[in-house]
Amino acid sequence: MTRRIAILTGGGDCPGLNAAIRGVVKASHGLGWDVVGIRCGFEGLLSPCDLLPLNLENTSGILTQGGTILGAASSGRFSAKTGHGQAGQIPPELIAEAQSSMEHLGISALIAAGGDGTLTIAQQFFEQGTSVVAIPKTIDNDLQATVITFGFDSAVACATDALDRLHSTAASHGRVFVLELMGRYAGWIAVHAGIAGGADVILIPEIPFRYEAVARAIERREAAGRKFTLVVVAEGAREEGGDFAVKGPMRADKEAQLGGIGDQVAAEIKKRTGKETRCVVLGHLQRGGGPTTFDRLLATRYGVAAVQMIAGGQFGMMAALRPPDIVPVPIKEAIGKIRTVPPEGNVVSTARALGISLGAASELAS
Amino acid sequence: MTRRIAILTGGGDCPGLNAAIRGVVKASHGLGWDVVGIRCGFEGLLSPCDLLPLNLENTSGILTQGGTILGAASSGRFSAKTGHGQAGQIPPELIAEAQSSMEHLGISALIAAGGDGTLTIAQQFFEQGTSVVAIPKTIDNDLQATVITFGFDSAVACATDALDRLHSTAASHGRVFVLELMGRYAGWIAVHAGIAGGADVILIPEIPFRYEAVARAIERREAAGRKFTLVVVAEGAREEGGDFAVKGPMRADKEAQLGGIGDQVAAEIKKRTGKETRCVVLGHLQRGGGPTTFDRLLATRYGVAAVQMIAGGQFGMMAALRPPDIVPVPIKEAIGKIRTVPPEGNVVSTARALGISLGAASELAS
Amino acid sequence: MTRRIAILTGGGDCPGLNAAIRGVVKASHGLGWDVVGIRCGFEGLLSPCDLLPLNLENTSGILTQGGTILGAASSGRFSAKTGHGQAGQIPPELIAEAQSSMEHLGISALIAAGGDGTLTIAQQFFEQGTSVVAIPKTIDNDLQATVITFGFDSAVACATDALDRLHSTAASHGRVFVLELMGRYAGWIAVHAGIAGGADVILIPEIPFRYEAVARAIERREAAGRKFTLVVVAEGAREEGGDFAVKGPMRADKEAQLGGIGDQVAAEIKKRTGKETRCVVLGHLQRGGGPTTFDRLLATRYGVAAVQMIAGGQFGMMAALRPPDIVPVPIKEAIGKIRTVPPEGNVVSTARALGISLGAASELAS
Amino acid sequence: MTRRIAILTGGGDCPGLNAAIRGVVKASHGLGWDVVGIRCGFEGLLSPCDLLPLNLENTSGILTQGGTILGAASSGRFSAKTGHGQAGQIPPELIAEAQSSMEHLGISALIAAGGDGTLTIAQQFFEQGTSVVAIPKTIDNDLQATVITFGFDSAVACATDALDRLHSTAASHGRVFVLELMGRYAGWIAVHAGIAGGADVILIPEIPFRYEAVARAIERREAAGRKFTLVVVAEGAREEGGDFAVKGPMRADKEAQLGGIGDQVAAEIKKRTGKETRCVVLGHLQRGGGPTTFDRLLATRYGVAAVQMIAGGQFGMMAALRPPDIVPVPIKEAIGKIRTVPPEGNVVSTARALGISLGAASELAS
Repeated sequence: MTRRIAILTGGGDCPGLNAAIRGVVKASHGLGWDVVGIRCGFEGLLSPCDLLPLNLENTSGILTQGGTILGAASSGRFSAKTGHGQAGQIPPELIAEAQSSMEHLGISALIAAGGDGTLTIAQQFFEQGTSVVAIPKTIDNDLQATVITFGFDSAVACATDALDRLHSTAASHGRVFVLELMGRYAGWIAVHAGIAGGADVILIPEIPFRYEAVARAIERREAAGRKFTLVVVAEGAREEGGDFAVKGPMRADKEAQLGGIGDQVAAEIKKRTGKETRCVVLGHLQRGGGPTTFDRLLATRYGVAAVQMIAGGQFGMMAALRPPDIVPVPIKEAIGKIRTVPPEGNVVSTARALGISLGAASELAS
Repeated sequence: MTRRIAILTGGGDCPGLNAAIRGVVKASHGLGWDVVGIRCGFEGLLSPCDLLPLNLENTSGILTQGGTILGAASSGRFSAKTGHGQAGQIPPELIAEAQSSMEHLGISALIAAGGDGTLTIAQQFFEQGTSVVAIPKTIDNDLQATVITFGFDSAVACATDALDRLHSTAASHGRVFVLELMGRYAGWIAVHAGIAGGADVILIPEIPFRYEAVARAIERREAAGRKFTLVVVAEGAREEGGDFAVKGPMRADKEAQLGGIGDQVAAEIKKRTGKETRCVVLGHLQRGGGPTTFDRLLATRYGVAAVQMIAGGQFGMMAALRPPDIVPVPIKEAIGKIRTVPPEGNVVSTARALGISLGAASELAS
Repeated sequence: MTRRIAILTGGGDCPGLNAAIRGVVKASHGLGWDVVGIRCGFEGLLSPCDLLPLNLENTSGILTQGGTILGAASSGRFSAKTGHGQAGQIPPELIAEAQSSMEHLGISALIAAGGDGTLTIAQQFFEQGTSVVAIPKTIDNDLQATVITFGFDSAVACATDALDRLHSTAASHGRVFVLELMGRYAGWIAVHAGIAGGADVILIPEIPFRYEAVARAIERREAAGRKFTLVVVAEGAREEGGDFAVKGPMRADKEAQLGGIGDQVAAEIKKRTGKETRCVVLGHLQRGGGPTTFDRLLATRYGVAAVQMIAGGQFGMMAALRPPDIVPVPIKEAIGKIRTVPPEGNVVSTARALGISLGAASELAS
Repeated sequence: MTRRIAILTGGGDCPGLNAAIRGVVKASHGLGWDVVGIRCGFEGLLSPCDLLPLNLENTSGILTQGGTILGAASSGRFSAKTGHGQAGQIPPELIAEAQSSMEHLGISALIAAGGDGTLTIAQQFFEQGTSVVAIPKTIDNDLQATVITFGFDSAVACATDALDRLHSTAASHGRVFVLELMGRYAGWIAVHAGIAGGADVILIPEIPFRYEAVARAIERREAAGRKFTLVVVAEGAREEGGDFAVKGPMRADKEAQLGGIGDQVAAEIKKRTGKETRCVVLGHLQRGGGPTTFDRLLATRYGVAAVQMIAGGQFGMMAALRPPDIVPVPIKEAIGKIRTVPPEGNVVSTARALGISLGAASELAS
């Protein structure tokens, strides 16, 4: 039976999105199905002009490309008040309007690629009757119910490359460098890149830090003859007792770059240690660029799994990695609460064992 | 209590080995322990001149470096007749000699980094009383009991990069390219790189292939206007009904390069399709080079976990990835039988869904 | 005045070709001109079905891509007996036929991208009245009259990356590695990559080598405690007194991979030194893949310069780099004799000063 | 005759410095000479504790490493009021003190690696009798008398990679991205990376810009259906009629990152076009990281040439690239006036032909 399915992505772009789209198209082609891309997230379902028919030709060569040929979602009527664990309810009549549009377009099933916010909306579509499946897309890796999301490995690789670059110049000049990375609510990028890149201090949202502890880590290195220090700061890291650096409910990339937490940390380190200290804000470089090999494979597998879930009638489900397999899990298990770095978990304890400071008050006792 | 532990690696070098060594040294430093490196695998335990004291200074900067500062293991008395699922028993008196040497050197615990062969020996040391722990190292990813070994992601990335390069020249010239990859018994590198790199045909040891099926896949592409084809061949792939391409119990890199399976496949494709066909044997490029970010993190975590297992008295155990944690598993669960690509498993079915030919006889029926 | 120009490429693909094509299209667009791509080299001029109209849309995004959207030239009637310094004369009536076709298609000027062979034909078109300009394209960098051709930097970077990979595995195992690189008549890739990649021995066509000298270089390293050696061999290198490894007038990529000079050198080294020696043939990996930043800029500049030369009526000229400028030089100054590595020149003397062996008989005297 | 020579570097670190140092050591080893590294620029000549004896062992493996094992120069007594074309005179007695120290240390010749500032001091040492030779090191490529300095190709590659990353995210979101690059007085990095990375607007110090022209370029793209724009800004770019963005005589990296020209341009674009506009300041990432293949070769050649110049008694000379050779040129020809991008030169005219806006007032006329 010829079938027509649609794919949309929510939120920012992410390395691997095109690989996932290509996977969807190739797997659909094998089943004789048609695929249309929705250009602007859920909002695009209401605007037929935003449809892009996808086929083997126009998805050829996109496996390696960054960004997304569908364009990132604008913040339309569907985006308000959802995401990152925040409650949000889309008006049922808006969903009904989109469903009516889908019916009119002959779209029998929908693949939603996104993080917590996008999937929260997808779940509401499902509950209201849409045949929807999901794939986990976020560079932050902060989604429940899957071992990993695509985009994360690429973001960590980009951040680690930046650390490598700062390492050589920091060592040559005997300076402190602060690298501010993405991660408003979860410090996964910071802690993975920090360990992989040999950082000396890693500050993440999950562990409020004390400047005193940061300064002491730098001074200990100095005493041991190590004249430079690399500090990684997730954009959502905060001083103990302080507020979240930026309070908005959604990622506000703009503010993150002007006088963000990285600059604050650098200024405070200089004040406390007297060391020449510089800050680099990696910003959008983390989400641009082509996917790593790991993300190319992962995103392709998610895309194929989404089609297989539709073929199997497994709606309301998200493709999740349970190594070595991709398995369907209920979307509702993935949403409502973002996955953060456990402060006493395995990754953090690895960092501590390596002698990395998390800037925690507890370090001052030792 | 000051403690002295040792680390050795068996088999070939592998991206991430230095990161693991650095992790061991850093974590040991935090506990006040000494670490010595054994230069030549288990054989080195018998030759005190092959010890390299490891410390923060001589492991500084090695996180990003390929190869291993300890040198790869020569094939000494310990290496015979073990590995890759083959039974092998080290003479108890040889182990006793090594244990006596360890005692003499004040080494109270041993970390063995390696694949099936190395870990089979490690288990025998453990059974004979040595305080041994293990970390899973092999680019082939063919070890039981862990989701992934370090080195694999780097090897796949290298192979995928080669596919990207061949893709552009193949497309420009309308040629068939055969890329021969490592994988004598397990096709993990081939299938992961093949999907990530957009290969059209993937031949692995687990699925005996038929030249007729390979030729048909190429002809179908031709008919669809795709004038070039990328074929990935694991070195252990074999024709249905044929023998394993190379029969020796251990990897014989040498033979793999001269008239190996890649060249055979290329010649046969040319004969059957008339298409201009070239073969590239990636060989040692796959195991050289620095580790990917993923492997830098993974190997570091394994190294730290090994030290923590020693500290916890968890001997006879191997560090294994059970995402998101590293957990100890009995070494004996990891050995004796290598982990191969399930012919009907998730990864292969993803490949099929993408329209990739595995060269299987079953494809001829469709 | 609206004008219609054409671009064709001869010979194999080469990183930067797409960047050059894009440069031609962008610069032509600025002048209000049309551009058509000729798919199969000069042969394509005779087959109107092989025309690809080029515009901003279908050249968008190709700046970074390897290969060529025009396809590499098949060996048609124009390719016989030209190139690499060999005399070759295209029948005037064949050129006349192509000119007639161009006139019919409304093509008023032609851009030929290629090396010695392609440019030799281009010059004959020019002499017979065609408004032709040229841009220097060859990974071998063996063209007269320009400081550098595009594609070369990318090929050297690829070869150097391979050396880096072999370096870590060679050092870990204490082995000798032989890396066979492209360069049938000129050793530029080998000598540049060899120095940049820290090779110990570099064998090039311009300096006939003696196995005795190669073996001695390895033994000297051994005596100095360096247990591994990296040997770079250009495919056209030959033993003193021996024949050219492969005799054909044109590059015969096929033969180069089966029992080529690299394998011979490896076998001989093993025989003479007893060292474990492996050979890797880099082959087509060198010409695949995207261009380096350097080549992206260089190829773009050449493409723009070609259009400017047409606008200025500077026909029969080739764009050449005379740093920091691109200048027009007569095509006939670039052809007829390929540019080889001067055996006593600056680059070779640098190699010698670094202690690199060229395998020359003269080294045996010292 | 055994001879002892010294090498020092001035100014910031730069990819390729270690390759140059290794080249000096290898070439000196071949001549039987000793080499000492001076840790802190000319200042280090006065502090014998800052000497680092260099040999084959401690320079092994540094060819590929970023930064410098000698450490970057602190701003001591020698650095005041020199550099970037500004007059500066070191007190003769200070030079005499350094010469006396050199004599005491048995150093018979000095290699100075640096840009305009360092070479200005080197020339004064030479005029006062020191046997000094120089090699051209600066990522800015703004030195007279050589085709290129080492470090530049690496910086351009890093900047171009950032553009590639921003390109995919800009295109996906339909945004304007401003990338601020190094280049206080010369726009070489900006214009090379801008062309190689497909930027739409390039603002450099040599061509004062008008916001009106920048806005118009963006609006023209919008009108042609291109919803995103990439703007490259050299840190020293300035509005027509405005002051230099930062006035200090030396590079003040610090200020460049806080509210620098990039942020100003982004804010103004947003104001004038209403487009969502983001700024990324690449900062120190440009000078960190390992050298490109091109820079590894170039820096190695410069290092070797410096030793050969000493051997030949060619003092007061700088190694310069005159392709394909490295030749000695008088240091005094390289200093006193930095090399800037000619506003009507070949590279800028290439940018214009590609349709790139330089933000010049003249563009408003068209």
